[in-house]
Amino acid sequence: MSSQSQQRGELESALAKRQLIMLPGPTNVPDRILSAMSKPMINHRGPEFRELLTRISQNAQYAFQTKKDVFVFSSSGTGGVEAAFQNIISPGDKVLVPVFGLFSQRMKEIIEVCGGVPVEITCEWGSGPTPSQVEEKIKKEKVKAVGLVYNETSTGTTVRGLKEIAKIAKDNGALIVVDAISILAGDECPVDKWNIDICITGSQKCLAAPPGVALVSVSEDAWNTVRRTKIGSVYFSLINMKESLDKGETPFTPAIPVFYALDEALCMLIEEGLGNRIRRHRICAEAFYAGLPAMGLKLFAEDAFRSNMVIAVRNPDGLDDKTFLTNLRRKYRVIISGGMGKLKGQTYRIGNMGSISPDEVITTIGCMGSALMDAGIKADVGAGILAAREKFTNY
Amino acid sequence: MSSQSQQRGELESALAKRQLIMLPGPTNVPDRILSAMSKPMINHRGPEFRELLTRISQNAQYAFQTKKDVFVFSSSGTGGVEAAFQNIISPGDKVLVPVFGLFSQRMKEIIEVCGGVPVEITCEWGSGPTPSQVEEKIKKEKVKAVGLVYNETSTGTTVRGLKEIAKIAKDNGALIVVDAISILAGDECPVDKWNIDICITGSQKCLAAPPGVALVSVSEDAWNTVRRTKIGSVYFSLINMKESLDKGETPFTPAIPVFYALDEALCMLIEEGLGNRIRRHRICAEAFYAGLPAMGLKLFAEDAFRSNMVIAVRNPDGLDDKTFLTNLRRKYRVIISGGMGKLKGQTYRIGNMGSISPDEVITTIGCMGSALMDAGIKADVGAGILAAREKFTNY
Repeated sequence: MSSQSQQRGELESALAKRQLIMLPGPTNVPDRILSAMSKPMINHRGPEFRELLTRISQNAQYAFQTKKDVFVFSSSGTGGVEAAFQNIISPGDKVLVPVFGLFSQRMKEIIEVCGGVPVEITCEWGSGPTPSQVEEKIKKEKVKAVGLVYNETSTGTTVRGLKEIAKIAKDNGALIVVDAISILAGDECPVDKWNIDICITGSQKCLAAPPGVALVSVSEDAWNTVRRTKIGSVYFSLINMKESLDKGETPFTPAIPVFYALDEALCMLIEEGLGNRIRRHRICAEAFYAGLPAMGLKLFAEDAFRSNMVIAVRNPDGLDDKTFLTNLRRKYRVIISGGMGKLKGQTYRIGNMGSISPDEVITTIGCMGSALMDAGIKADVGAGILAAREKFTNY
Repeated sequence: MSSQSQQRGELESALAKRQLIMLPGPTNVPDRILSAMSKPMINHRGPEFRELLTRISQNAQYAFQTKKDVFVFSSSGTGGVEAAFQNIISPGDKVLVPVFGLFSQRMKEIIEVCGGVPVEITCEWGSGPTPSQVEEKIKKEKVKAVGLVYNETSTGTTVRGLKEIAKIAKDNGALIVVDAISILAGDECPVDKWNIDICITGSQKCLAAPPGVALVSVSEDAWNTVRRTKIGSVYFSLINMKESLDKGETPFTPAIPVFYALDEALCMLIEEGLGNRIRRHRICAEAFYAGLPAMGLKLFAEDAFRSNMVIAVRNPDGLDDKTFLTNLRRKYRVIISGGMGKLKGQTYRIGNMGSISPDEVITTIGCMGSALMDAGIKADVGAGILAAREKFTNY
């Protein structure tokens, strides 16, 4: 197998020394969660799995701040978003969708593929929709639902007016579907209090579990629509999910190891407390937002839309992003993302999620600074670290 | 957390002592594969994942015996079947589908949900379709595709005429879509040689990995249809998958731990050799088929359709299946399945898959015999084990 061993170059090298995964998902996964996955298989139609799924659903209700069922699909987060729209859209239904990055563009595409007609609000990338924009549009066009990406991973922006937008949707007889994949458990998202009809998250973001499952909550209003919708998917049927969940099962064979991991991750969330986790994300984000400009980098997102989960910075003039990212990965073992879509080459994105702590923030700022200097770009690393460190005084 | 600990009763008890998972999937997963999942996360848009996915796809080609691309969806096997039909069915397309158990019923449902019109061949449960039945039907009704469940997990039957059925489909201008979820790598399924257009398998059956991904191969004829089909799903789009695979990626965040596991599982398949693995499944199946009747149990499937992956036996008169299965699980720690659908209470199903070896066969027969005696049912355990053991003489 020596030729096979040689083939393992990049992967084995990545695993040989621990990398700092500062991506906007997946994140660094605590060892406790990783080891949970090496448990043996169980019968997914037996009492063991029933117990596992029941506990996961209950603990997920805590994360979502909801009393409604939370369903766990074996898919990526995008699968969860597709599930949401497959279950509520009938051909020709209008859905209002603000587009301000790649993931909201994808949501629009999903709406179309499900037979819906997107009513688009276009926003500058780096900003996002405001409640008044949504209100103006919804008064003009009767829509069945509003679809909103709460945190745009592609631009590092959070829609700060979600609470108000959800109210506007409800007041105008529309469902509100929220893609909270990269934000739930990292910032405020009280599903019942804000009357969010369908809320979707993924395992690999602020929950700090590996990717592989999507979690979806469904309100009573949403069920009223779901029951009347002829769905174009078997795999993503919420009716199937509900029937199975009531028996403590999933309709189809679940990704058992990821369920083990999610279970452990949710127990860790409960131990920490949702409020504490949100506070930790906020403080670490503040440290990034203080440290990176102090070092000389320019932030990308508008102040009012800055995300606590994804920190986007502009690529300094004259810096080749690929070379920079490769150097950061190879020499410093810190993995961040480049820009997506039309921001390719223009931004970097740092994930500030899951098990994020001051250590990772400081290491990332420090290593990014060193890598900038390697590339001949001026960077005041000392000032950057000092400014970040100040935010941790009362951590 | 003491109340939480108490809640863990069934699950922790299942994990405390190793159970023998003799289900028709998931199967017992070798430790080597389980531990592969505790590796840290990697960037799914970086060179490490590119290397992982490229190796998986290449090794999957060996398992499928194909030179065509094999795509890996983060979903259950059913997701893979849905992907197949979402990508080739346009509204009103006729698809021939033999129905002879729950999974072929589900395939029919998927065809309908995708907008297709199923042209059904109904077969007795415990048997399956013959090439002549398919030929007769296809001559009468022009269909776009034939959808076939190669191994019906719900009844323990294998369609022995797949090679001929695939040829009949091609000769009549139809695509052939094969659900090989519970059979690929456990029995003959040479995709290219038999001209199978779309072949689907899951990770948790004969590959002995945990559940969480579906593998799908696509022929050139299938691509010609895929390219002309307006698909009603973003998540299951093969066009997206192909574009991403060419870059060494998946369109959406993959279930990384299951990819690690699948990688290890495919390496183990290569080490063993596909022919040897198929032979091992066959010999172990022969041992079950000899041992169980020798002990006094009646087999369910017709001789000509007996599966080497799922051994179905009839429930003896007067035996409560739930009590029997619970006793087998609690006292003997052997997990087999009951009947599905209309066979509930009437059959038991034993998985003979993945890492199956003489040890598991003998233990299962022995423990089933003891549990039968516990329930006051006559069972000649000695004769059963002897008859099974004879099949292993040249193992």
